[in-house]
Amino acid sequence: MNTRDDCVNADRQDPLAPLKDRFDLPPGVLYMDGNSLGVLPKAAAARAAAVIGQEWGTGLIRSWNTAGWFELPARLGDKLGSLLGAREGELVITDTTSLNIFKALAAALRIQQQKQPARRVILSERDNFPTDLYMIQGMIDLLQQGYEMRLIDDALPLEDALDDSVAVMLLSHVNYRSGQMHDMAAVTALAHERGALAIWDLAHAAGAVPVDLNGADADFAVGCTYKYLNGGPGSPAFIWVAPRHTQDFWQPLSGWWGHTRPFDMAVAYEPAGGIRRYLCGTQPIVSLSLVECGLDVAHAADMAEVRKKSLALGDLFIALVEQRCAGHPLTLVTPRNHGERGSHVSFRHPNGFEVMQALIARGVIGDYREPEVLRFGLTPLYFGYADVWDAVDILKGVLDSRAWDKPEFRHRAAVT
Amino acid sequence: MNTRDDCVNADRQDPLAPLKDRFDLPPGVLYMDGNSLGVLPKAAAARAAAVIGQEWGTGLIRSWNTAGWFELPARLGDKLGSLLGAREGELVITDTTSLNIFKALAAALRIQQQKQPARRVILSERDNFPTDLYMIQGMIDLLQQGYEMRLIDDALPLEDALDDSVAVMLLSHVNYRSGQMHDMAAVTALAHERGALAIWDLAHAAGAVPVDLNGADADFAVGCTYKYLNGGPGSPAFIWVAPRHTQDFWQPLSGWWGHTRPFDMAVAYEPAGGIRRYLCGTQPIVSLSLVECGLDVAHAADMAEVRKKSLALGDLFIALVEQRCAGHPLTLVTPRNHGERGSHVSFRHPNGFEVMQALIARGVIGDYREPEVLRFGLTPLYFGYADVWDAVDILKGVLDSRAWDKPEFRHRAAVT
Repeated sequence: MNTRDDCVNADRQDPLAPLKDRFDLPPGVLYMDGNSLGVLPKAAAARAAAVIGQEWGTGLIRSWNTAGWFELPARLGDKLGSLLGAREGELVITDTTSLNIFKALAAALRIQQQKQPARRVILSERDNFPTDLYMIQGMIDLLQQGYEMRLIDDALPLEDALDDSVAVMLLSHVNYRSGQMHDMAAVTALAHERGALAIWDLAHAAGAVPVDLNGADADFAVGCTYKYLNGGPGSPAFIWVAPRHTQDFWQPLSGWWGHTRPFDMAVAYEPAGGIRRYLCGTQPIVSLSLVECGLDVAHAADMAEVRKKSLALGDLFIALVEQRCAGHPLTLVTPRNHGERGSHVSFRHPNGFEVMQALIARGVIGDYREPEVLRFGLTPLYFGYADVWDAVDILKGVLDSRAWDKPEFRHRAAVT
Repeated sequence: MNTRDDCVNADRQDPLAPLKDRFDLPPGVLYMDGNSLGVLPKAAAARAAAVIGQEWGTGLIRSWNTAGWFELPARLGDKLGSLLGAREGELVITDTTSLNIFKALAAALRIQQQKQPARRVILSERDNFPTDLYMIQGMIDLLQQGYEMRLIDDALPLEDALDDSVAVMLLSHVNYRSGQMHDMAAVTALAHERGALAIWDLAHAAGAVPVDLNGADADFAVGCTYKYLNGGPGSPAFIWVAPRHTQDFWQPLSGWWGHTRPFDMAVAYEPAGGIRRYLCGTQPIVSLSLVECGLDVAHAADMAEVRKKSLALGDLFIALVEQRCAGHPLTLVTPRNHGERGSHVSFRHPNGFEVMQALIARGVIGDYREPEVLRFGLTPLYFGYADVWDAVDILKGVLDSRAWDKPEFRHRAAVT
């Protein structure tokens, strides 16, 4: 695609294009941060009004049963699970990604403690999203059982790191910064061959790339619903556990929602069968209910088409940036290879922070990640080829005019 | 008050009566379950529409800063804290009560491990809300360090149970079933005298009875915002830590929201100073934002008036039930003594479950708790003296006519 007209034509032939109409997008914005916070499904406003007005206001306590509040984590979990290669009853939407990492990690360590008690290494990546590393550190500190964290990086590739001391491997399917994607099935197979259990963080993968948890033979998976799944700011996360671990799965955050008979008010904790034992405390029903609006749009899309368009948008974005912004110090961080790429594309620029602020001021909303990384999310449900063209046009303008080189773009407030 | 007219007169003189207008209450309902799920503040619908439409829909990722999403746990925490005797920066609204128990328990055990490592007992009450006991059990199982749970009950009073093996005491300020209230200051003093740390669960106390966490010299407190604080179904919970423990406080759920510089994306976890270190993962912003609507009404009330009316409503309810329902097998479970009573009143009845179903069918919404307990919440912000009269009238009707003795009232679905 060498002209904007080519892009407009590609949009006209895009089978996913009609789905854009199911979202409320702000005018004048090219939103390339759906990998951080997804957009607003049109259905969400009415859904919130109904949950608040009718279910809470009128139904009150009765809504736990009549509105199905108590079933939401499992019912929505099934709806999400079918997009991720999970079967019914294997996945719940609950708590946060961090907390679900804690549950999965505790469970995986316990399984290994019983089978291979000498293994004391928890393997992850130096470049993993920090909360994954922080939760590992918290667990190690809490247990005081001699566990240690080992991090894959350029100096220590996965092949070498996965030795017979590794109990559990916790990796992100798609890296939050670079967009690099692991081959989940191959890496899981390697972990299993070396005797380790595999936990996958799908925060940047769920809804963005094809995921087949059972097909990949994963052990545990967690992830978030507020990025590519458009569940709303901070909407509850999910946890999936392979059926082979379900019945002997134990997790220490054993709140009353995970009890087999929560309303018996028994003194002794007895975990529910299957999926319910991953639940802990009472869930934020309004935020949780809204997750369904995003899931409904995801279900209306063919994931193969989503992937195809995501890669095409990424190819186009990379090509246009490299052509039109040639001469500027931009370095592609994301793998070009389709098999190793998620659904966002990142470039380094020495003034990345300021460049991103200038872009945002012109309506191209991506985000910035230390160090120097400009991150652009490509979200096929509502972002098109002409949008890519226009975004690169604005990027080129910002770089050519050095519009980023202004004091107001240097201020670093907290950004997510 | 011997007649309904007396009750109507009392309502006319009630300084809190105008606050009822700040809630949307369903017609034809006498709601006596605000101790389980509070009612809908009128401000909530517009607030939700703004958070969803403007903050999420239009602001998108920018709202983390521009709409103050990132500050919500601490800002709303301060707003709640001032109602509970906490100073600024001591309390955050986040996660669930169960998870906050886990954090507080881990922190308290760690403090004791360093000071009095031989102590291996976690003390609670057999009659405590089950999730408190389940979280203790999960922690003990996880740590495998020889901790054990000891439960106060009729056979083992607190005085005897609090021996020099107790590391941490976790009690509910107001019991979820009986409505019995502990003297927080006195019990905390006793715990400290015996060398134990005190964690208080305020789920049935916050917004219902006067609480002065610093005045009582408590160590940790947790609680929920969806009961007397009218925050919405499953709205996020809170955690408070005494300033003397803040800087050396450690908690194992060390997600990125608790990091001192979350956007540095550093590999090593470094806890934020003060209150932020109690945070873990990304919070459900829509549900969290709605908490403010309930807090605003609570701030409009004088807590001394709330307590005075709560006790008066309770006295009236007990007196009317005992007068007008005399001859029926009702047994008061809640202490009559004001100093030992929270803001709900419970009676046992051999057919308690069916009686409550019959009451709900007639618009008196209380709830049922095993075994045989009818539980009636008294919520001074929106419940009045004539409401008490009318509720007892309906209770008397149900009992006199044995209206509860019907097959449809025997079916036990999950109730909360």
